[in-house]
Amino acid sequence: MIVIMKPNAAPQSVESVLSYIERHGLQTHLSQGEEVTIIGIVGDKTKLPTENLVSYKDVDRIVPVTESYKLANKKFHPEPTSVTVGNTRIGPDSMTIMAGPCAVETEEQLINIARAVKKSGASILRGGAYKPRTSPYSFQGLEEEGLRYMQEAGKEFGLATICEVVSQEAIEAAVKYVDMIQIGARNMQNFILLKEAGRSGLPVLLKRGLCATIDEWLNAAEYIIAEGNPNVVLCERGIRTYETATRNTLDLSAIPVLRERTHLPVIADPSHSTGSYRYVSPMAKAAVAAGADGLMIEVHDNPACALSDGPQSLTFGKFEKLTSELKPFCHLMGREF
Amino acid sequence: MIVIMKPNAAPQSVESVLSYIERHGLQTHLSQGEEVTIIGIVGDKTKLPTENLVSYKDVDRIVPVTESYKLANKKFHPEPTSVTVGNTRIGPDSMTIMAGPCAVETEEQLINIARAVKKSGASILRGGAYKPRTSPYSFQGLEEEGLRYMQEAGKEFGLATICEVVSQEAIEAAVKYVDMIQIGARNMQNFILLKEAGRSGLPVLLKRGLCATIDEWLNAAEYIIAEGNPNVVLCERGIRTYETATRNTLDLSAIPVLRERTHLPVIADPSHSTGSYRYVSPMAKAAVAAGADGLMIEVHDNPACALSDGPQSLTFGKFEKLTSELKPFCHLMGREF
Amino acid sequence: MIVIMKPNAAPQSVESVLSYIERHGLQTHLSQGEEVTIIGIVGDKTKLPTENLVSYKDVDRIVPVTESYKLANKKFHPEPTSVTVGNTRIGPDSMTIMAGPCAVETEEQLINIARAVKKSGASILRGGAYKPRTSPYSFQGLEEEGLRYMQEAGKEFGLATICEVVSQEAIEAAVKYVDMIQIGARNMQNFILLKEAGRSGLPVLLKRGLCATIDEWLNAAEYIIAEGNPNVVLCERGIRTYETATRNTLDLSAIPVLRERTHLPVIADPSHSTGSYRYVSPMAKAAVAAGADGLMIEVHDNPACALSDGPQSLTFGKFEKLTSELKPFCHLMGREF
Amino acid sequence: MIVIMKPNAAPQSVESVLSYIERHGLQTHLSQGEEVTIIGIVGDKTKLPTENLVSYKDVDRIVPVTESYKLANKKFHPEPTSVTVGNTRIGPDSMTIMAGPCAVETEEQLINIARAVKKSGASILRGGAYKPRTSPYSFQGLEEEGLRYMQEAGKEFGLATICEVVSQEAIEAAVKYVDMIQIGARNMQNFILLKEAGRSGLPVLLKRGLCATIDEWLNAAEYIIAEGNPNVVLCERGIRTYETATRNTLDLSAIPVLRERTHLPVIADPSHSTGSYRYVSPMAKAAVAAGADGLMIEVHDNPACALSDGPQSLTFGKFEKLTSELKPFCHLMGREF
Repeated sequence: MIVIMKPNAAPQSVESVLSYIERHGLQTHLSQGEEVTIIGIVGDKTKLPTENLVSYKDVDRIVPVTESYKLANKKFHPEPTSVTVGNTRIGPDSMTIMAGPCAVETEEQLINIARAVKKSGASILRGGAYKPRTSPYSFQGLEEEGLRYMQEAGKEFGLATICEVVSQEAIEAAVKYVDMIQIGARNMQNFILLKEAGRSGLPVLLKRGLCATIDEWLNAAEYIIAEGNPNVVLCERGIRTYETATRNTLDLSAIPVLRERTHLPVIADPSHSTGSYRYVSPMAKAAVAAGADGLMIEVHDNPACALSDGPQSLTFGKFEKLTSELKPFCHLMGREF
Repeated sequence: MIVIMKPNAAPQSVESVLSYIERHGLQTHLSQGEEVTIIGIVGDKTKLPTENLVSYKDVDRIVPVTESYKLANKKFHPEPTSVTVGNTRIGPDSMTIMAGPCAVETEEQLINIARAVKKSGASILRGGAYKPRTSPYSFQGLEEEGLRYMQEAGKEFGLATICEVVSQEAIEAAVKYVDMIQIGARNMQNFILLKEAGRSGLPVLLKRGLCATIDEWLNAAEYIIAEGNPNVVLCERGIRTYETATRNTLDLSAIPVLRERTHLPVIADPSHSTGSYRYVSPMAKAAVAAGADGLMIEVHDNPACALSDGPQSLTFGKFEKLTSELKPFCHLMGREF
Repeated sequence: MIVIMKPNAAPQSVESVLSYIERHGLQTHLSQGEEVTIIGIVGDKTKLPTENLVSYKDVDRIVPVTESYKLANKKFHPEPTSVTVGNTRIGPDSMTIMAGPCAVETEEQLINIARAVKKSGASILRGGAYKPRTSPYSFQGLEEEGLRYMQEAGKEFGLATICEVVSQEAIEAAVKYVDMIQIGARNMQNFILLKEAGRSGLPVLLKRGLCATIDEWLNAAEYIIAEGNPNVVLCERGIRTYETATRNTLDLSAIPVLRERTHLPVIADPSHSTGSYRYVSPMAKAAVAAGADGLMIEVHDNPACALSDGPQSLTFGKFEKLTSELKPFCHLMGREF
Repeated sequence: MIVIMKPNAAPQSVESVLSYIERHGLQTHLSQGEEVTIIGIVGDKTKLPTENLVSYKDVDRIVPVTESYKLANKKFHPEPTSVTVGNTRIGPDSMTIMAGPCAVETEEQLINIARAVKKSGASILRGGAYKPRTSPYSFQGLEEEGLRYMQEAGKEFGLATICEVVSQEAIEAAVKYVDMIQIGARNMQNFILLKEAGRSGLPVLLKRGLCATIDEWLNAAEYIIAEGNPNVVLCERGIRTYETATRNTLDLSAIPVLRERTHLPVIADPSHSTGSYRYVSPMAKAAVAAGADGLMIEVHDNPACALSDGPQSLTFGKFEKLTSELKPFCHLMGREF
């Protein structure tokens, strides 16, 4: 932490900052420039809420020097982490495709979709049983019944399974049926849910919040890992910007930024981010080229009749075309697929 | 809902959209322009997921015509709602000041703050007992103990009380001690929590999410009201933009927009939005002038030592100065204070 | 400027940063913490492009300590500046209302509008003669003829006049007819135009760019002042955010932020920012309460027939109502009006 | 254009909208739903400023149906355009690399860089002679002298050349020396400059504004084409968002969106968008995979000493590594390189 004083700060102002810091058992390091005075703080910063120093007289700004996340931080864990989900592994040498419907609708539908995505190369079946919807009047999911269908469909085709969870109750149910749980964008800073996901024992896919910075996202991952669960996979799914041509703006530069800051695997979701099936294929390829460890893609047997997010779902044919076109990109990136 | 076809859409494409809509029991209304064909949909739109129509051939865009929120909608409830909280009332004729520390720290501190804010004109005591913090290593609140202190401090000075809740457990505890619960910005689309808040029986202060549109915010309010709880107050607390001079950007134009769209009361939080005590006073006055029904303001006996959000807290002296300066603005707006 | 090294930076890396800085005639100040090493740079930073230091080995970040604008900076010019425009003065004790049509359409129309805005308390007549329009097929303004009408209307009613300029040619024409020129949001970083405005000799209203930070805005003002023209007035006119209920988001907290950073006057434009006449009145009052030195408001004799921006224009009646309601707010703020 | 009336709009309100439209020689098409009345407008909309209709009583919203750009619009020009620049061609079958320093500094430096980028596969030499800089105190470019060096370096190595222009004067100079001119992000809505670029006769690279929507960008292209210059290439260079880990957010989904809306070629700039040489390579590959027709990349012989934008410049070695790694991605996309 560095404290930058205002130009011509009074000596007493500098003195009172120094004594505040030292009173809390930290050391200070004074640097007097021609224009400004700078105070470095050395020691265990958890001992005082240093941000409050900005209310001291003549203090201009506080600049943090170290990140607040430790367990997710590459500085303290330089090797990339691989996360095992059922019979598959998400990490640096492979390309993991999670595919399936936005919402689980019927058992028969899910079996059909599972068969199709397995055939085209997906290794994880996705499907929502608890749907967080903007309007209370939209379809909210089949809940535990949906989880059961997921388990059956996964077993039948040798697919691992993932479902979004929105509450402790949903986590308790998910543990019984699926291989991985997902924290959605709207819950990325639902810290209670993050802790519960951390205690669930299941690997966790953590979607980026619609307006979360990369550092807030890594702090959210820290909540999960701090509960003893190191199996966290990050999913870039678009951020909210002023552009309305796509539902959100897929921030692919987050992938190389994350590679520098964390050892956790990163995947991308070109379906939710763009909001249109027409943009899924180019953005899936771009995500692979940017270094993603996997993709989450919505596939539906009849998008026009989907109960949720039909506009962004691929048909079986389009999904098969996509995965066959993706293969050589994965190989160029040194990934098996 | 209106379906806009692409220029020169094939007649069969138009036909198949028409028959899809009519098959679901809705009526259509065809309008053939020189350049484009437009199809209006008449009837109960909950019968089909009309958004999926964009995957139909030659469909250009779908334009919604009516809002998805009904109970929060001014169109169906033109008179402004007043919400009673303890011995006070939030609504069109009054100016409600909610003041107190970001986090409840000790009993003694809270008593001191409560005395000071009461003296300066606050009618509701705010104080966090459950703190959602970006980092898992930051102070997370006193929980139920903090609620108890709130109740005592409220009683001693005749203040109504409000606390943020972050889980069902917190709601269950809050019901025992405080007069109003708050859903924070990070939980604005935690739909499970919204429903539980709706069932709590307590009035709810719903903060706007950091990247929520006004319509998403009203849909979140709809979740609460749909559970049978009409006592919802909205709180504008800044949205996330690219500007870094303030923590967030207080969107005061949301106030007149909300006045057109909803009958619910609206307050503003100049403390969290700006992130600095230096900007609280001008933005508080601006919020009153823009039409706010109330203000939420952080006050601390010793901001430099606050365990949370010290930089934005007012001292007792600054708070007293603010409320005395606010009075004539409130009177100009026809509000008692 | 402070250089923050990565944790465990090699001593040679630190050494090579130190020697790079010192080679350019600047002094360094080394601060070795437990986790990180920090290097302060002392001296005239214009001597080396310090940002490049991030490409040095083991450098984590560069933190600027001083602002790049000097002439616009309050630190070096603590007293507020007043700017004289024709027979009026924009500054701390008055409330300056600039009002008029978005675009000058006909001589007769402008005379009518000038009469009405003068009667209701405006002191500066605004009107666009050179219109920057998103589409090349929209009405682009009357150019010099429009300026001439402005001059006549101003003279007839004793109003000072302001027109937007979009090119050197427009500045040359404006100098002959009007009292103040305006640089629009889209040209805020058109540095050539800023320099020409600086050399024009006329006072300049500098609108904030749609996505400009406050510091970029002040740097743009610096371009004008650096040409020897200190008569710059800033105009907050809304920034681009994801919210679509208003055209842009009026960032009123920019006003108190600017009060700390610069001595220049600041006004607000509630017409362009909100895009709707229905929100002009509450946002005008809010801007005054936030500390604005003036307002720019669009007024039209027949908004439904305006050639540009009709939806946000006030009728004469609405404008008169607004100014009479504004008066007591101005008096509360210690401003004559 | 569609006019959506408010629910329960009075018949007289509907009537007055209808008569306003018809008075201007346009036809109307009335669609009366259960909840809302919708009025379609048929005919030449340039005859009336339809946006003003929102000020009519009981009008809820105006929805545009057709885009305002025509010449840039794929609907009226379905085949992709190729743009010839010197001895190279930007379009669907090739991968055009524009490389060079941010700013031209000395003749010798430019020759060295030109040799290196030619060797590694670039076909266009970029280099700034007129630099738009945030601060008036930063290096502003060598102007015409810089253009002369560009011409020489281009000739010596058989490279086409591109320079940014910031004024009519710069365009007049550029026409004498270089093969293509660039309109930078800050000037994207400098409509005077766009028109002058359109009249220059040279092909134009049009960078996206930092906060421009895709439709505003296409309207800016329309300004150039409307002057008789069809040789416009679009360049995605990042948009401004709240994320600070990268300088801007490279919006790669703009590429497939543009493919649907326009016939113009599209390239991407991974250097300016990310602001860091460390992210250039993954984002360059991602841009190719997303369908870009080319890339603009900053290369410098000694980034640590660059007078502008050193942190994002690649060394010769890193640039060579990048182009050799890019080759197979280009071939996968069916592009020669």
